[in-house]
Amino acid sequence: MADHNALPLVVLTEQFARLPGIGMKTAERLAYYMISRSEEEVSAFAEALYAAKREIRYCSCCQNLTDQELCPICADDRRDHGTICVVEGPKDVTAFERTNEYNGVYHVLHGLISPIDGVMPNQLKIRELLARLQKEDVREVIMATNPTVEGDATAMYLARLLKPMEITVTRLAFGLPVGGILEYADEVTLFKALENRNEM
Amino acid sequence: MADHNALPLVVLTEQFARLPGIGMKTAERLAYYMISRSEEEVSAFAEALYAAKREIRYCSCCQNLTDQELCPICADDRRDHGTICVVEGPKDVTAFERTNEYNGVYHVLHGLISPIDGVMPNQLKIRELLARLQKEDVREVIMATNPTVEGDATAMYLARLLKPMEITVTRLAFGLPVGGILEYADEVTLFKALENRNEM
Repeated sequence: MADHNALPLVVLTEQFARLPGIGMKTAERLAYYMISRSEEEVSAFAEALYAAKREIRYCSCCQNLTDQELCPICADDRRDHGTICVVEGPKDVTAFERTNEYNGVYHVLHGLISPIDGVMPNQLKIRELLARLQKEDVREVIMATNPTVEGDATAMYLARLLKPMEITVTRLAFGLPVGGILEYADEVTLFKALENRNEM
Repeated sequence: MADHNALPLVVLTEQFARLPGIGMKTAERLAYYMISRSEEEVSAFAEALYAAKREIRYCSCCQNLTDQELCPICADDRRDHGTICVVEGPKDVTAFERTNEYNGVYHVLHGLISPIDGVMPNQLKIRELLARLQKEDVREVIMATNPTVEGDATAMYLARLLKPMEITVTRLAFGLPVGGILEYADEVTLFKALENRNEM
């Protein structure tokens, strides 16, 4: 921004530009938008930032983000605590909850093993998962990490770690996405769909 | 967002989703990003919001956003105060300043006349422009509103208003954008470029 712009506006623009996926142009637009809002609206935004940072922590059991000691899913007795779905992040929990089909509980790793990005197993919430498996009576652990190199590596690493514990370890099925078009599917997906075909 | 999500996170997501051009998915991503930042970084963002809203006001002369009584451009004696470039918003001032070619001053209307959107002339900073023209010794007013229906209407409205004051009123030139490709130019632009052709 040119130096004729007021400093507080430049500072706010820079703050917006730090957000992932927000460039300088968009940041400028958002900064102008914010100061066009009423004082109450700006306060509400700033307070929401403070409150989220102050009140959100990890669930002591599944490590998902929550504002309580135990998140609503872990605290829910009607859910099956013998099935743990292991996911990369809180957004994956939201995705599974949207299906309304999963009745087990979760474990959020907060990342995937990725030596290239410098993410090693001890930086993920794996210790907490092992502690849970030792304490609780778990029948099945579902590896629900992304079907990517990092997701597969993390699933494989955990499966090997869990093998001596005599717990069933499963992985999400790979195949054609529902509503997808066969001719646009990549080779690996198509191969997986063929390999995992089911009798009709 | 599903109800398993913590309330402060839902509130923050909704705040982000109110920003123009930010949908629910992006808002969710930004909310998660913010709580992954350190407390200092979150405070810096919230403080930047408060500071911008608290300190930014309209320049008493040109109505551009500034944190002083008079903005740096209006306060600059080396600029030509006899030429006023009338623009829709603060971002247009930034655009002109980037050219490093304009040495006059500005007047920011903060909108364009648009009966469809309910924006009437009295909601724009037109009264302030007329007051300036009566007080100061202005030779030329450049209408630099967008080449749109609203921009043209606003320019025409102002030109008529200024006619009795014996001030030269000009409008930005229309023509091919530099680096543009002729075959992709729309008919109106091409017609304007032809009409306003210059001798070489």
